[in-house]
Amino acid sequence: MTITATARNSGNTKSVIDRLQSLLESDLEGVEALLRKRAKSPVDIIPDLSGYIVSAGGKRLRPMLTLAAAQAVGGANPSTHALAAAVEFIHTATLLHDDVVDESDLRRGKPAAKSVWGNSASILVGDFLFARAFTLMVETGSLEILNILSNASSVIAEGEVRQLAAQGKLDLPTEDYLAIIEAKTAALFEAAARAGALSGGSEDHAPALATYGGATSIIGKAVGDDFREGKVTLPVIIARRRGQTEDHAFWERALNVETQTDNDLARAIHLIRTTGAAEATIAEAEAYAGLAKSALKSLPESQWRDVLGELADFCVKRAY
Amino acid sequence: MTITATARNSGNTKSVIDRLQSLLESDLEGVEALLRKRAKSPVDIIPDLSGYIVSAGGKRLRPMLTLAAAQAVGGANPSTHALAAAVEFIHTATLLHDDVVDESDLRRGKPAAKSVWGNSASILVGDFLFARAFTLMVETGSLEILNILSNASSVIAEGEVRQLAAQGKLDLPTEDYLAIIEAKTAALFEAAARAGALSGGSEDHAPALATYGGATSIIGKAVGDDFREGKVTLPVIIARRRGQTEDHAFWERALNVETQTDNDLARAIHLIRTTGAAEATIAEAEAYAGLAKSALKSLPESQWRDVLGELADFCVKRAY
Repeated sequence: MTITATARNSGNTKSVIDRLQSLLESDLEGVEALLRKRAKSPVDIIPDLSGYIVSAGGKRLRPMLTLAAAQAVGGANPSTHALAAAVEFIHTATLLHDDVVDESDLRRGKPAAKSVWGNSASILVGDFLFARAFTLMVETGSLEILNILSNASSVIAEGEVRQLAAQGKLDLPTEDYLAIIEAKTAALFEAAARAGALSGGSEDHAPALATYGGATSIIGKAVGDDFREGKVTLPVIIARRRGQTEDHAFWERALNVETQTDNDLARAIHLIRTTGAAEATIAEAEAYAGLAKSALKSLPESQWRDVLGELADFCVKRAY
Repeated sequence: MTITATARNSGNTKSVIDRLQSLLESDLEGVEALLRKRAKSPVDIIPDLSGYIVSAGGKRLRPMLTLAAAQAVGGANPSTHALAAAVEFIHTATLLHDDVVDESDLRRGKPAAKSVWGNSASILVGDFLFARAFTLMVETGSLEILNILSNASSVIAEGEVRQLAAQGKLDLPTEDYLAIIEAKTAALFEAAARAGALSGGSEDHAPALATYGGATSIIGKAVGDDFREGKVTLPVIIARRRGQTEDHAFWERALNVETQTDNDLARAIHLIRTTGAAEATIAEAEAYAGLAKSALKSLPESQWRDVLGELADFCVKRAY
């Protein structure tokens, strides 16, 4: 849970994700082409703004999951590419709206789209990408997949509103915190993996891959958000609950980017360690990884199954 | 084009719309039940906020068009009700986002949802309703209708962005102004009518009803927006273009709600009359009504066809 450990392990992430990226290279090229093509519009702001955020260093985790799920059960095809692009558009639309809601000026170290084009353009281009995502999904012709992804979209929005209602609540019970992550993050990863499996032709393996996708995304999210951005993460919630009442004022101040000081990270890490919040978080992460990996067992043996298993392991290692 | 004339004619609107409402009474009850049921969520803000705007005096013009289109070609059924509710949800989501984009504090004379719950809740509940609209459409099982409505949704968002880019441009060419209305308003009315016809079982009459829906909505929108809210309407655009350069400063000031004075409406009406902008607008409205009514001719004779024809006529009368 130290900065050094995080830096060391981020080499690992890169290698697992890099491997997945090379394995999926030609599929990902197809998806990138769709992301460019389907964001076209005679209204310049639309391709400009969406090109900016779509190419702003996103790792394409969700499209990769859709593609890998299809590959693991029979192979990716043009419908898989369309679904992977649709999932990335839904994710991008959510980011555009999130930046307006969170009043974030930065996104992945660059000025947020709303800082460049304004809140209104971010809201409306988000709506456009969301609509285009549905058009892409409709073109695949599967009502089952449309149902999965439209349900996931309303669960995501519900999670966003739930988070809005819980804003600034540091005494959130772990279950409520996980419920928000499940809705905001896991629902789309779960749907991305399920849609991929179905497009690859497998009804049988779709539930296992959905479980894998949802569980793995929770591990990454619960431990991964950046303290310096004031994000409330599972270790913080647990450390605060288990700690002294005197520390409450510290957490309150340290998680507000405007009042945070340079020494706060060190103290936060200290409190997370001494309260046992680090171990509790790791235990939680390991439980999810166990769930993710046991779901993979039902799949046919393949390099895809192996690399997905490694990805779950890696996410847990990042928690240390 | 006087206030008196508008007041007198609004009695007429009421009677045509009232008749349509009585004819559709039981169908509309089904739609209202769906609007309540499908906005449900354990996250209280969602049903509270959406209940507030959904029941805030909207006339349900789009759902009525979906229902009437189905009735005109064979009858409304549960799928028609689901589509009518989906269309109203898409419209409501657009209104929620519009109020944030336009910074409007009022909607239909009541505080806008964003004035009560804030911008963030309005954005996110809009996203929720948009997703729920898609779930409703998916449940009807028609990929053709899904394609129509997801395309209409991206056209609407594109029109919103186009309008954003044109903001404050009083020298907008009539064609550009109509292109924005077509995208923002006509696209959804057109899709609502087409979806209704298809759900009623008629491929043959769907294009005619789509044309009717789009054309009729343009008549209403081009002349109907309120001068006192600073909305730039077709008569204003024409009057400004045909008028003296000295008047440009007047229009600039009068269309800004913050600088508008009580006498501006009278002067605006004077300029709209003396420049012939009133006649030009009426001619434009009559052309659209002609298009709408000739589209109806191909339909089988029925009370539905008659009342739709009267509705188009009425919209033109409102332009006088």
